[in-house]
Amino acid sequence: VFQAPTGTRDFYPAELNRLRYVQDAWRRTSVNHGFEEIDGPTFEHLDLYTVKSGEGIVSELFSFERFGGEKTFALRPEFTPTLARMYASKAASLPKPTKWFWMQNCYRAERPQRGRLREFCQWNCDIVGLPPFDANDPEGEARAKALVDRELLSCVIDMLRSIGLTHADVRVKFNSRELVTGRLRAIGVGEDREAKVLALIDASAKLEKAELRQRLEAAGVSAEAWDRLMAVPAVQDGVAVLEHGLDRLVGMLVDEMPDEDCDWLQYDPGIVRGLAYYTGMVFEVHEASGAERAIAGGGRYDKLIEMFGGPPTPAVGFGMGDVVLSLVLADKGKMPADAEVARKLGLNPDAIVVSNGSAEADGAVAGVVASLRRAGLHARRSSKKIGKAMQDAAKVGARFCVILEGADKATVKDMGTQGQEMCGVAELVGRVARQ
Amino acid sequence: VFQAPTGTRDFYPAELNRLRYVQDAWRRTSVNHGFEEIDGPTFEHLDLYTVKSGEGIVSELFSFERFGGEKTFALRPEFTPTLARMYASKAASLPKPTKWFWMQNCYRAERPQRGRLREFCQWNCDIVGLPPFDANDPEGEARAKALVDRELLSCVIDMLRSIGLTHADVRVKFNSRELVTGRLRAIGVGEDREAKVLALIDASAKLEKAELRQRLEAAGVSAEAWDRLMAVPAVQDGVAVLEHGLDRLVGMLVDEMPDEDCDWLQYDPGIVRGLAYYTGMVFEVHEASGAERAIAGGGRYDKLIEMFGGPPTPAVGFGMGDVVLSLVLADKGKMPADAEVARKLGLNPDAIVVSNGSAEADGAVAGVVASLRRAGLHARRSSKKIGKAMQDAAKVGARFCVILEGADKATVKDMGTQGQEMCGVAELVGRVARQ
Repeated sequence: VFQAPTGTRDFYPAELNRLRYVQDAWRRTSVNHGFEEIDGPTFEHLDLYTVKSGEGIVSELFSFERFGGEKTFALRPEFTPTLARMYASKAASLPKPTKWFWMQNCYRAERPQRGRLREFCQWNCDIVGLPPFDANDPEGEARAKALVDRELLSCVIDMLRSIGLTHADVRVKFNSRELVTGRLRAIGVGEDREAKVLALIDASAKLEKAELRQRLEAAGVSAEAWDRLMAVPAVQDGVAVLEHGLDRLVGMLVDEMPDEDCDWLQYDPGIVRGLAYYTGMVFEVHEASGAERAIAGGGRYDKLIEMFGGPPTPAVGFGMGDVVLSLVLADKGKMPADAEVARKLGLNPDAIVVSNGSAEADGAVAGVVASLRRAGLHARRSSKKIGKAMQDAAKVGARFCVILEGADKATVKDMGTQGQEMCGVAELVGRVARQ
Repeated sequence: VFQAPTGTRDFYPAELNRLRYVQDAWRRTSVNHGFEEIDGPTFEHLDLYTVKSGEGIVSELFSFERFGGEKTFALRPEFTPTLARMYASKAASLPKPTKWFWMQNCYRAERPQRGRLREFCQWNCDIVGLPPFDANDPEGEARAKALVDRELLSCVIDMLRSIGLTHADVRVKFNSRELVTGRLRAIGVGEDREAKVLALIDASAKLEKAELRQRLEAAGVSAEAWDRLMAVPAVQDGVAVLEHGLDRLVGMLVDEMPDEDCDWLQYDPGIVRGLAYYTGMVFEVHEASGAERAIAGGGRYDKLIEMFGGPPTPAVGFGMGDVVLSLVLADKGKMPADAEVARKLGLNPDAIVVSNGSAEADGAVAGVVASLRRAGLHARRSSKKIGKAMQDAAKVGARFCVILEGADKATVKDMGTQGQEMCGVAELVGRVARQ
């Protein structure tokens, strides 16, 4: 007996439809927000990943070699390096800003845990480059970045909203790496210790108090300095942050954002994103009570395009996985029932075709089903008795049940209105077609 | 400078849209024909592939190991082993027949050639199990198989038709492995030499005459026996095959098929499909003049579900790759232009929003764009002048161009009718919404 590899999933139709339901929301939101879809290889040359993340990442990758002379490849653990490579190689001919989204599987060679599998689907949106801004305005570039950062945050928030979540369910916790650097300098942490303390902030929510204290001591951060570092204004939503004058950049971010979106934002000094390459705004989407891992995370990475051989280009992006989001949707009762998911995906049949059992009708079923399908309609043949076929039709949400009464006569039952009428076989396509 | 691995592809938006256009036709046809979508892991335990195809396949796979104690994995070269595994593990609770489709990437560690890449997208449809049949009818099971085989062929043909191809462009060349076995016995080829001669038939179209003659001699097949093996009735379409009484099974296959589908069929004694596991009807879709590799291929594999630990279950299926199909569509001029592809995929914007240049209008753009998007509409902001924004709107097929004339006043230009009218900002969503 064969089994799927640990940490991977088999998707039978009902499970795949639930994934498609999430992906449809991702894709629809991306398109509505003006992003265009791209894709790249499932595996890349290994050095595409080590250039950004260092050799340390190799142990977290599925890597392999082929044929003596060839390079080593690795399954993508994320899409950003591919995006940076693709942007860099066509930078001169791409619009400013370039808005791309991506939605495929990623792979991590780690031990699987709740919310963290070895193969999972990820949605990315990235905005590379800035719209035109006034070069004479000393704040012009910062304003242009804030505009683009807002666009990205609005896209995440709109997706969460469109799938039925509210800001009581999930929160978009944000911070700014520039702000964090400033605060680090204020408590005496210089560039030499910065990476270490950033990693500590990133891990702090998951550490026991005693262990955190011990590690802070080792890093030379006093308890008082730590409190200053993690200070939050009394009122935590975005507007309050502005009112408290916490930071000019954060202010610009929230300033022009519609109230409906601001409601989802929460300033959190503990959000720094572990990765070394973030340079400005950073954020994570979390379940409001802190259950589960992060639903999404991202931020501004202004140095990355250069690292992959492109011209210096500011950029901002995020990734959202299907696993944690699906857990949160299920927990909150926001994942519709299977039949409703199928209906929302347009998978419910237009017609179930069944014979009344006469030889003439039996012989006509195949032709009727074929003609409906050739007309672009979703038709299914039932080999059951009429009553049972009708029950099946109701169960799968079919729009019509077509009962063949002979070679050229059919009863068409509208499963919505429950009305029925007779017609000739030639009229069936017109009768069943969506208006 | 980084590059994608040889034999893989970067899909920028226009290229990805062309792939999505093909995938949409695949998915729509599958759904209309009553197939349900499934998916499995991108990599499987290596032995899932060797059990079906033998150790010989290992050199054609991208395989890798993780952590000392773990098994070896391989990127899927095809989906059928995963499908058989998934069916086998839930066989008792699945409907008869089970109709599944699948549409994802496959991987082959071969040297890339025209029409054959290392990573490509494949569409599979499989019908596993049979509908109920009269066990007292000696031909009952054969008729049930022919019914299901026809359903599968109609699905392929409908997809080709729906994407704009005709039976003048491509042909569905079919044969029957049972028929081939009968013909082999008739010319004195027993079970011991069967695999060898099947491989020779499979390769014959690509061999030089002299080499074919030499290999036939080595296999003990005389020129006269070869001619009998490859004999085709004078009239080659499906109906003619039946009239010539070529084979009862083939007759049953074509018998009840609508004429519109029969027109695509062509009996071809050279189609045997190299793989050892086919047991009945086999087919390949080819460009009519013989250009390019096969567009699709498949057949009946009645022993495979057992091989993967399931109950004995007849099954039939096919696979179609995106690479050759796309080459044929391009060659025949059947791939629409980029803008038309985007429109067919529903990717054209509902509105381009632009300011008339006044400070009030500039300040209102972000809010207007956000409210359109929150209403589920596809809105894009333009930072250009009105005239240039209007040109862009026409180019990307936007339905409306919205010119903000102040904080609460807009001109809405219908890009279809070219008519325009003024309205307040609050009315914009209603004006732009799809009716």
